[in-house]
Amino acid sequence: MLTITTIEEIKKWRNDFQEKHPRKKIGFVPTMGFLHRGHLSLIQKAKETADIVVVSIFVNPIQFNDKKDFEAYPIDLQNDKALLSDLKVDILFAPSKDEIYGSGNPEIIIDYPSYTNVMCGKNRPGHFQGVLYIVHNLFQYVRPHSAVFGLKDYQQYLLIKKMTEELAFDIDIIAADLMREENGLALSSRNARLSKEGIEKALQISKALFLAKEVWENNKNTTAGEIKTILFEKMKNLEIEYASVYNSEILQEFNEEETFHRAVIAVAVYIENVRLIDNVILE
Amino acid sequence: MLTITTIEEIKKWRNDFQEKHPRKKIGFVPTMGFLHRGHLSLIQKAKETADIVVVSIFVNPIQFNDKKDFEAYPIDLQNDKALLSDLKVDILFAPSKDEIYGSGNPEIIIDYPSYTNVMCGKNRPGHFQGVLYIVHNLFQYVRPHSAVFGLKDYQQYLLIKKMTEELAFDIDIIAADLMREENGLALSSRNARLSKEGIEKALQISKALFLAKEVWENNKNTTAGEIKTILFEKMKNLEIEYASVYNSEILQEFNEEETFHRAVIAVAVYIENVRLIDNVILE
Repeated sequence: MLTITTIEEIKKWRNDFQEKHPRKKIGFVPTMGFLHRGHLSLIQKAKETADIVVVSIFVNPIQFNDKKDFEAYPIDLQNDKALLSDLKVDILFAPSKDEIYGSGNPEIIIDYPSYTNVMCGKNRPGHFQGVLYIVHNLFQYVRPHSAVFGLKDYQQYLLIKKMTEELAFDIDIIAADLMREENGLALSSRNARLSKEGIEKALQISKALFLAKEVWENNKNTTAGEIKTILFEKMKNLEIEYASVYNSEILQEFNEEETFHRAVIAVAVYIENVRLIDNVILE
Repeated sequence: MLTITTIEEIKKWRNDFQEKHPRKKIGFVPTMGFLHRGHLSLIQKAKETADIVVVSIFVNPIQFNDKKDFEAYPIDLQNDKALLSDLKVDILFAPSKDEIYGSGNPEIIIDYPSYTNVMCGKNRPGHFQGVLYIVHNLFQYVRPHSAVFGLKDYQQYLLIKKMTEELAFDIDIIAADLMREENGLALSSRNARLSKEGIEKALQISKALFLAKEVWENNKNTTAGEIKTILFEKMKNLEIEYASVYNSEILQEFNEEETFHRAVIAVAVYIENVRLIDNVILE
């Protein structure tokens, strides 16, 4: 595996690759590192659809609206590199913060105003602007043919897919299913910050989501309000940021009395000051 | 000259060109057509710095905040083609509105909030967002090595230059001087909509700017307020949208009492319902 840390080098690598292998396809998996089985499944998916795989590891400061969350974000580059080598990833792009933002934070704003003030955007001002910015520029540097994003960050996946189309990138955006521990807990780098008791509490999240999904599958006339009641009842010991039912294409929250044919039930909670998100897709 | 009208074809042309001529440089001049000597000077500049020149003609509806202004925008594709052929332009990219926005106007916003609510942005909400969007995507389709923009639209030039850097395009943004008629009138496609009397009135604009420049060059302690007084005095018969002195790097308006080492004096006026802009750069 070749590790590249500068923008100049990754661009040079990309141009050389184009010249040498004009027909080969590049798959891309952008990550913030501290890789777990969830990431590895994204990489597996990239390998299936491309000839060569580039993984990036960059903890993007401008997408953290909470500086403490940024500083607490776990990092283990040595272990990440070992995992990526095992998976026979071809290129790791791991730039420093200075390499990306050395000349100061960007002043330009890329935004989806009507999509970024619901769900995770509502309480994280600037978060998705930061995500869209870094993904845009990683796409510019790597110029992949496809890129894989996990459905755990459903809103992120949807916005990146829209941005890729509207900003005319020739990149196929591939969705990868959310991965769970056997006990149901959604995989997340942030789980590493939870105590045993925290993990135990966190299991309520997926239990609530699974029950809500089951109820809906047994009765498609279940309203959004009834789903919300289940979520809040089943997670009553947790500090809930949001827990609701959203149109899975335009991310608008359904009204209490509405029923639906397809939706995403999405949740964000805080446990031991760690922000956890999870969702199930209904269709 | 090869005329291309679809996104698919221009991308294909671009990819083929890359394969056949990996070392050759593409220069790009995006325009809204109705070409005049000003545009031709941009094309000349592109030819000097690139091996092959692509010109685009596209009247971009989403940058017109005033629908009437869009509908009144002059079009003469036949004449434009003849001019471009004479100049030995290689590629004309002239897509239809449907080709670019067939699936609806984009929901994504690209913006520089602190730069787009001064000067031309102040009274044209969404104008620069529309400009940045279309230039971004034209850059994606054409992937030029350099692109030329006129200093007549000083704010547009500056914002595109910033966007190119911050959104990681490998494109050299080249500035071309504002071109004038012998009588001083800044060249503009919109001049075609003025009557003889309108043209006569419009001459006051450049006269006011030249006088302001001369006063400053003779006394560098001239304040922004004194410059403004000259402008408003010399254009007192005109309907002025703005006329002021701005920091030429960050576009902030100088306060009345401020002096400066470098600046842009910029003006927008309405004559016979036609919006005209002009500027002089002081340094």
